[in-house]
Amino acid sequence: MDFNESTALNAVLDSFDGAADPRTKEILLAVARHLHALVRDLRPTLHEWEQAIAFLTAVGHKCDDTRQEFVLLSDVLGISMLVETMNADPAGTEGTVLGPFHMVESPARENGDSIDLLGTGTPCLVSGTVTDTTGNPIADAEIDVWQCDEHGFYDVQQPGVQPPGNGRGLFRADDQGRFWFRTVVPSHYPIPTDGPVGRLLSAAGRHPYRPAHVHFIADAPGYRPVTTHIFVADSPYLDSDAVFAVRKNLIVDFTADGPDAAAPYRRACFDIRLAEEATTR
Amino acid sequence: MDFNESTALNAVLDSFDGAADPRTKEILLAVARHLHALVRDLRPTLHEWEQAIAFLTAVGHKCDDTRQEFVLLSDVLGISMLVETMNADPAGTEGTVLGPFHMVESPARENGDSIDLLGTGTPCLVSGTVTDTTGNPIADAEIDVWQCDEHGFYDVQQPGVQPPGNGRGLFRADDQGRFWFRTVVPSHYPIPTDGPVGRLLSAAGRHPYRPAHVHFIADAPGYRPVTTHIFVADSPYLDSDAVFAVRKNLIVDFTADGPDAAAPYRRACFDIRLAEEATTR
Repeated sequence: MDFNESTALNAVLDSFDGAADPRTKEILLAVARHLHALVRDLRPTLHEWEQAIAFLTAVGHKCDDTRQEFVLLSDVLGISMLVETMNADPAGTEGTVLGPFHMVESPARENGDSIDLLGTGTPCLVSGTVTDTTGNPIADAEIDVWQCDEHGFYDVQQPGVQPPGNGRGLFRADDQGRFWFRTVVPSHYPIPTDGPVGRLLSAAGRHPYRPAHVHFIADAPGYRPVTTHIFVADSPYLDSDAVFAVRKNLIVDFTADGPDAAAPYRRACFDIRLAEEATTR
Repeated sequence: MDFNESTALNAVLDSFDGAADPRTKEILLAVARHLHALVRDLRPTLHEWEQAIAFLTAVGHKCDDTRQEFVLLSDVLGISMLVETMNADPAGTEGTVLGPFHMVESPARENGDSIDLLGTGTPCLVSGTVTDTTGNPIADAEIDVWQCDEHGFYDVQQPGVQPPGNGRGLFRADDQGRFWFRTVVPSHYPIPTDGPVGRLLSAAGRHPYRPAHVHFIADAPGYRPVTTHIFVADSPYLDSDAVFAVRKNLIVDFTADGPDAAAPYRRACFDIRLAEEATTR
């Protein structure tokens, strides 16, 4: 019955004996084991424990329909990227973090449409082909795209300034797997620093910037969806992304030379490989 | 630059190189190390990661001025009790968890006053002496007391039903270190189960009950404060407290035989030993 430093962990582990679902039990046991190890390592004072409770509470209170501070916390601790990495199929295009701004549905658009509703940034055409892992095009693949504007803001961060759906589009590949859309070159930007995660970064001596990128989720029936970005090759912060999401293979040149005079000022190509669902571990 | 399963942790640890405060840095490094180990152990799916984010967000949203769901979560995982145990001075009275209901100030009361403002439970007198570790009384020691009513509810859980301050009192020991107050015998009760922590307990197959207890914080200038409970010896759930807070030495008989006819129906004695601040590790 007596709880002390040496009996503590087992008392908690035993309390999960009755968990009905085996995976739930596995998760509870692992969470208890690692949290207790953390506390034994750190030996927090009661004041530090109170600060931890206050920090987590503040993170929770910062979450609403357009802000997900726990995702941000997971991001800046490299947890989101680790989970994404573990779940990506090595045969497909490399994945990276979902990020906290995929909270509204992207409006359906036609290939060739612009996702930029402002008209103030550097125009750009993004195109690519969705294929399977042997290079065969996947007709009708779905490509969900979202990005910030040329000042680094997503539409949901500037209600009343940006129209809803700015920087977002849900596209469908043609019968040869091709997709293309107009947009503006996105900017690098700081993740939101006006909440507890911003205070954490500041205490850690870390800058809050992410290199410029466009988000993608590509999916097709029978394939594993890929959540990823393309990074603008000449963006700052490629070496120190606040959320650890950069991968060499996802850095894409946004070239200034179009093939014809009518083309937009810059172009980016990004081909996406989807692994078949059957290859799932 | 490339983030993958084997480089992930070091990338995150390196990002904390610039933390100005050494303890902050130590905490960030340990949190990252143990969280990454947890994720590598569990290999969560993206859906499970989303569930974890949703769970933590729900815990945060449940917190308000009268409800602290993160404290509750810390409690049911045995973390609060572990931290309390690590911080207690072995020379003083054993500590136990603060719990989530110490969120309002206890009203100052005189020795002999009743903290029960309802008059419906089994009357009871609680008394004791605050001493140092050699048994010398500590005059004017402060004793902060709070408890639930005979149905298991704290005042803050029943605004409009219980008057504010019911079950609470801030007492001052007399010149011989003695304190005494009237109350009612508290009931065992379930911790709040209408939030995400309740769902966790249910998924874990655990009951939410705590054995009947009275909370104490005793303090005096020059001494280390003690946060503790007394547990009612004939209460159910002494062997399976939902928050792991029971210690043998804190179980107290609430005897039915008073020394005189005018005495309340039940009596409980609890002497409190405070360690000197100088003995802090």
